[in-house]
Amino acid sequence: MILLNLNKKSKTPIFKQILFQLTELIEKGVLKPGDKLPSTRSLANHHQLNRNTVYKAYEELWALGYIESKTGSYSTIRERKNIAEKLASNSENIDWSAKINSKSQKLIESNYKIEKQEKDYIDFTPLSPDPDVIPSEEFRKCINDSLKNSGSDILAYGNPYGYEPLREFISNHMQLHGINVTKDEIIVTSGAQHAIELILKLFIEPGSEVLIESPTYSAIIPLLEYYDVNVLELPMSEHGIDLQILESLLKTHKPKLLYTMPNFHNPTGITTNQAHREKLLEICERYEIPVIEDGFVEEMKYFGKNILPVKSMDKSGLVFYVGTFSKVLFPGIRIGWIASNKYCTDRFAEQIKASAISVNQLNQVALELYCKQGLFEKQLKRIHTLYRKRMYVALKTIRENLTNKNITYTKPAGGYTIWFETMKSNISESDLVEKLKMNGIQVMPGSKAYYSQTDKISFRISIAHRKEDEIEKGLEIITQILNKL
Amino acid sequence: MILLNLNKKSKTPIFKQILFQLTELIEKGVLKPGDKLPSTRSLANHHQLNRNTVYKAYEELWALGYIESKTGSYSTIRERKNIAEKLASNSENIDWSAKINSKSQKLIESNYKIEKQEKDYIDFTPLSPDPDVIPSEEFRKCINDSLKNSGSDILAYGNPYGYEPLREFISNHMQLHGINVTKDEIIVTSGAQHAIELILKLFIEPGSEVLIESPTYSAIIPLLEYYDVNVLELPMSEHGIDLQILESLLKTHKPKLLYTMPNFHNPTGITTNQAHREKLLEICERYEIPVIEDGFVEEMKYFGKNILPVKSMDKSGLVFYVGTFSKVLFPGIRIGWIASNKYCTDRFAEQIKASAISVNQLNQVALELYCKQGLFEKQLKRIHTLYRKRMYVALKTIRENLTNKNITYTKPAGGYTIWFETMKSNISESDLVEKLKMNGIQVMPGSKAYYSQTDKISFRISIAHRKEDEIEKGLEIITQILNKL
Repeated sequence: MILLNLNKKSKTPIFKQILFQLTELIEKGVLKPGDKLPSTRSLANHHQLNRNTVYKAYEELWALGYIESKTGSYSTIRERKNIAEKLASNSENIDWSAKINSKSQKLIESNYKIEKQEKDYIDFTPLSPDPDVIPSEEFRKCINDSLKNSGSDILAYGNPYGYEPLREFISNHMQLHGINVTKDEIIVTSGAQHAIELILKLFIEPGSEVLIESPTYSAIIPLLEYYDVNVLELPMSEHGIDLQILESLLKTHKPKLLYTMPNFHNPTGITTNQAHREKLLEICERYEIPVIEDGFVEEMKYFGKNILPVKSMDKSGLVFYVGTFSKVLFPGIRIGWIASNKYCTDRFAEQIKASAISVNQLNQVALELYCKQGLFEKQLKRIHTLYRKRMYVALKTIRENLTNKNITYTKPAGGYTIWFETMKSNISESDLVEKLKMNGIQVMPGSKAYYSQTDKISFRISIAHRKEDEIEKGLEIITQILNKL
Repeated sequence: MILLNLNKKSKTPIFKQILFQLTELIEKGVLKPGDKLPSTRSLANHHQLNRNTVYKAYEELWALGYIESKTGSYSTIRERKNIAEKLASNSENIDWSAKINSKSQKLIESNYKIEKQEKDYIDFTPLSPDPDVIPSEEFRKCINDSLKNSGSDILAYGNPYGYEPLREFISNHMQLHGINVTKDEIIVTSGAQHAIELILKLFIEPGSEVLIESPTYSAIIPLLEYYDVNVLELPMSEHGIDLQILESLLKTHKPKLLYTMPNFHNPTGITTNQAHREKLLEICERYEIPVIEDGFVEEMKYFGKNILPVKSMDKSGLVFYVGTFSKVLFPGIRIGWIASNKYCTDRFAEQIKASAISVNQLNQVALELYCKQGLFEKQLKRIHTLYRKRMYVALKTIRENLTNKNITYTKPAGGYTIWFETMKSNISESDLVEKLKMNGIQVMPGSKAYYSQTDKISFRISIAHRKEDEIEKGLEIITQILNKL
């Protein structure tokens, strides 16, 4: 019989004392795998305890894996597995590449990775607001006030459609851009990227055809790869995609979606005119092709009057307008939206529910308070003035310094990006990008924005993070290098 | 010749005056589609202007879609599309149900919708922390301090792996549960649901087999439908899934994943013992089946000692441990994680990058500050004490009131849910749920947690949002109804 040292006067309940002492005996190896424990009855009798007390201790031992017990037989000590001390090194035993699906593999290969450069580089790659103009202090007050006023409500799960007052604000904001949608036609997303994925998820099956601009937004390419899409590329001219090519393609293809950026196209900076937008919509209506209109920098028109979004003319409800706060406010909160129709909005909500229950509510509530106080409009004006100057300096510097007639560049009316391209060159794109890098300049290689391989030699600069003097200095270096090509 | 009223002394630039006046003439119908505009040269001569000024105005008119212009010919007024005044009503023209893919349709049908009840219902459905115990004031201070200290950095795009100090905290927290992972084996997600979706996305192809517990977490069912998974169900006994059935299934099937909740299983509340966990892992290692271990309420053990997670013994790195802050802190920030291996963590980061660029950074930074100050541990203790009492009251009320021997119920050692089941009954599940509702009680029908149809009549109650007196009153009503079955 095992002798336990039980103290009925101790604060520790007797069953725990039994548990601890038996555990110790097992861990010390006094009791070995296969050894029998006394029956609950005999241990109870021996120590003058209620049998239930012993039973409770044995139950815990069993739950913790120290003993095996079969009805009507003695409990025996079992061999217990130890904790894995180092997991990382051993995970190499498994051939994960054989386990993950081919789509994920494609995704990894197609994701564009921006290399971080040392500090003294003039980095023309970031396409998000300059940290120096992010209104973090104003937003801090809004989030602080929101939590003060209704903290525990806000920190609960949110509505899968998005926070209703924010959807109301967004639908009003859309009205300013000529888009007549109600809040029930707005879904709040975790940024524009998430919005695009939601639309793809709704319409795409493996092998579905999707029309994209060529070049296009580089980060849509991995998504198209992941969703196993058959991509149809529409070449960009200086006025937008070639609509004749679109029409002729539609005679033989049945694409599920067309993805376009009519304003300050990424990467080229091109803005299509009203007639192009009308014609594009007319074609898509005729063939009933849903359109993703990416308005990621809609508000950032610097020169000339605003041209209304395609969605503003969309009487049939075919256009899915994607908006975001990431490019004019701050990306860290991950808030964007889709303005579409009620039917599809309901479906997007189901997607969000299944994927993440809801988009994070706290940031939506704070953002709505921020917008409601007129701070969004104020911030738009502030950065509009700032970036208008930056774009002006950029275009002026190029105009005054670029002498090589074999180089073309776009003259954006807004947004953050300028596109350089050359057909005749004795240098490869990667060599050109490398040469720029050696001279302290980082740009996005144009090929990253093409789905297929391209013969064109091109690159994109973004002025989003660069001050006027950096833009001037950087573009002087760039044009010098281009002039020598 | 059109006569314009141009005022050179006005603050409005001349080109804008031309633009506005011509626009007005077109919109009033004075100038009609097909009408020719004067050439830029003649209009300039007539008004003694620089020709470029007129040219600039015409260019704007063209961009805005008012005129068509061909090189070497006069510009003519064009028919301009109007803004769509009402989009919503017209979107019904399109047969969206024919356009969206079948997976999305399945998703919509399988998402479980909880009906909102009137205020005086005792609602046993919510499975998130009671709003009254959410530490919103402490979190407010953290988010406020974070924004004060480094606002614009935090509001930028985040790291797709998650905020590094938070990953560090999570890996330390995992150590407390016997899981030896480094921060490089942790990815931060938008909650546990997102974590599960990321794992599915990495391994599943349409038609892949996945093993689930039956019953299981109701919200994984729409995901399995969406990803077109071939589901293999493992029946739950009172000690967890039947491991013999698992073994025999694996002789003829090659599932890509097994999804399990070893602690306080949702919906049943069952906790598996150490031996069951070892055996489960041993089988999955033998057949090399990756395991999703959902530890959604890992910390909430009220009675007895903690049993270590399956992941703690996982030497081969097959286990994907899913954790979340939603069930013990607050769900509104949408932060969860996966503890796995380096190889797959890198792949999850690529998925996040493609889907949403990064999980929202602001909430991660604030959460890390919250955790670092020891507030997470403090909150765990606080709600642990609270819910221990609630669960005690619940089980005591059932024990003292339930007399119908045909009803079984689980006695959870932790978590929030209790499961009632009966095989012999003269009432259908929906009638039973309806009867409870008529008596002011809302529960989750058990069938919502089954992938396939089931003969069993069951329901789940969650004590998460209910105070002790509500639990007592609610369960008195429930047991009265059950006793009469």
